[in-house]
Amino acid sequence: MADLTLRERKQQRARQQIIDAAFALFAERGFANVSVTDIAERAEVGRSTFFRYFGDKQEVVFSDEADLLEAIDAAPPGEAAPDLTTALVQVCELTEQLAGLVVGDPRRWPERERLLAANPELEDRANRKLQRVADGVQGVLLSRGTDAEVAVLAAELAVACFRAGRRTAGEDADAVMPAMRRAVTLLLGDRIS
Amino acid sequence: MADLTLRERKQQRARQQIIDAAFALFAERGFANVSVTDIAERAEVGRSTFFRYFGDKQEVVFSDEADLLEAIDAAPPGEAAPDLTTALVQVCELTEQLAGLVVGDPRRWPERERLLAANPELEDRANRKLQRVADGVQGVLLSRGTDAEVAVLAAELAVACFRAGRRTAGEDADAVMPAMRRAVTLLLGDRIS
Repeated sequence: MADLTLRERKQQRARQQIIDAAFALFAERGFANVSVTDIAERAEVGRSTFFRYFGDKQEVVFSDEADLLEAIDAAPPGEAAPDLTTALVQVCELTEQLAGLVVGDPRRWPERERLLAANPELEDRANRKLQRVADGVQGVLLSRGTDAEVAVLAAELAVACFRAGRRTAGEDADAVMPAMRRAVTLLLGDRIS
Repeated sequence: MADLTLRERKQQRARQQIIDAAFALFAERGFANVSVTDIAERAEVGRSTFFRYFGDKQEVVFSDEADLLEAIDAAPPGEAAPDLTTALVQVCELTEQLAGLVVGDPRRWPERERLLAANPELEDRANRKLQRVADGVQGVLLSRGTDAEVAVLAAELAVACFRAGRRTAGEDADAVMPAMRRAVTLLLGDRIS
C-alpha cells in the first residue's frame, strides 16, 4: 500500500465502496431489482465513477476474477511441459501461487454462490470468466513452448477441477481450495508419486 | 421409422423444417436479425407450432443436445466405479455409445461453431447445455453407486475433454470425436494400459 499514490488509494477505496454497496443491495433486494444508479447512490459515487471500474452491474460480482486473470497473464516464464502430467503439475504450481485469488474474497463467496444459483445470467458470466481463465492458463503453457493440444487440455482439466471443487464445496469458501486440491490429487493419481 | 405413427412422422418433419429454416435464415441474415416469426414463416408452420418444439430461437441451435441429454438419462445401469479411472472408463464407454449424438448433425457443426463464435449469448447457452450434460453424466455414475466426489469430477473431466476436442477441431465436425478421444487417451495415459 505504501507504493500507492493518494490518487490510487482513493480509486481503490471507491472501487471497494462500489463492491460493498452492490453486494449489500443484491442481498437486500435481489439482483434483478438493483440498478447501477442504486449502487452508485449507496456507494456515494457518481454513475460515471461506477462505469470507470465496472462495465455493468454483473461485473461487480466478478471483481475478483479481474485480479486473477491479471495474475495469470503475469505468470513467470518456465520450461515447456513435455507431457500432460508435467503441464498439469505446472498449472497446480500456478494455482497454489494464486490460491488467494482463486476463491477471491471468502466473505463474499457464499453470497456470490447464492447470486449465481438464483440468476442464470450470472452463472453465464461465471462460465465466460472460467473460459477466460482457461485461455489464460493455456496461454501461459503455450508461451513456455508446450504443445498446443497438451496446453488446451491441461487448461480445460484445471478448470474442470475447479468446477468440481466448487460443486463439492458449495457455499463453504474455505472448502473450495481443499476440494480442488483433492480433485487434482485424484486426477494425477499415481502419476506423480 | 416404421414404429412411428403418421402423427409422429408429421411432428418430426415439422421440427426438422423449423431447424432447416432457422439455420438457413441465420446464415443469410445473421442470428440477431432473425425472429421466431421469420423462422415459422420460412418453415411454413405457425408460431404456436414453433413453440411446441422450441422455447426460443436460441434453442433451435441446440436441437441435437436435447437428444443427447435424453440418451444420457436413459444410460443402462452398471457397476459402481471404485475409483476415478474406472469412472472415466465408464464415461468413455457411454460417450462411444452416444458418439453420433455428441457432435450432432455434422453438416450443421461448422455453421453452429460460427454462430457460437459470433453470438456470446449462444456460447452462454452452449455452456448451460454442457453443464446439463455434466449433471447427466454425474447422475449416471451416482445412480450406479459411485462416490459423489469421484462422480462430480469424472463428469467435469469428461466435459473438459469435449471442450478441448472442440477447441482443437474448430469447424471440422469429423475432427471432434477423434480430438476428444486423443484428449481422453492423454488424460488416462498409462492408467489403463
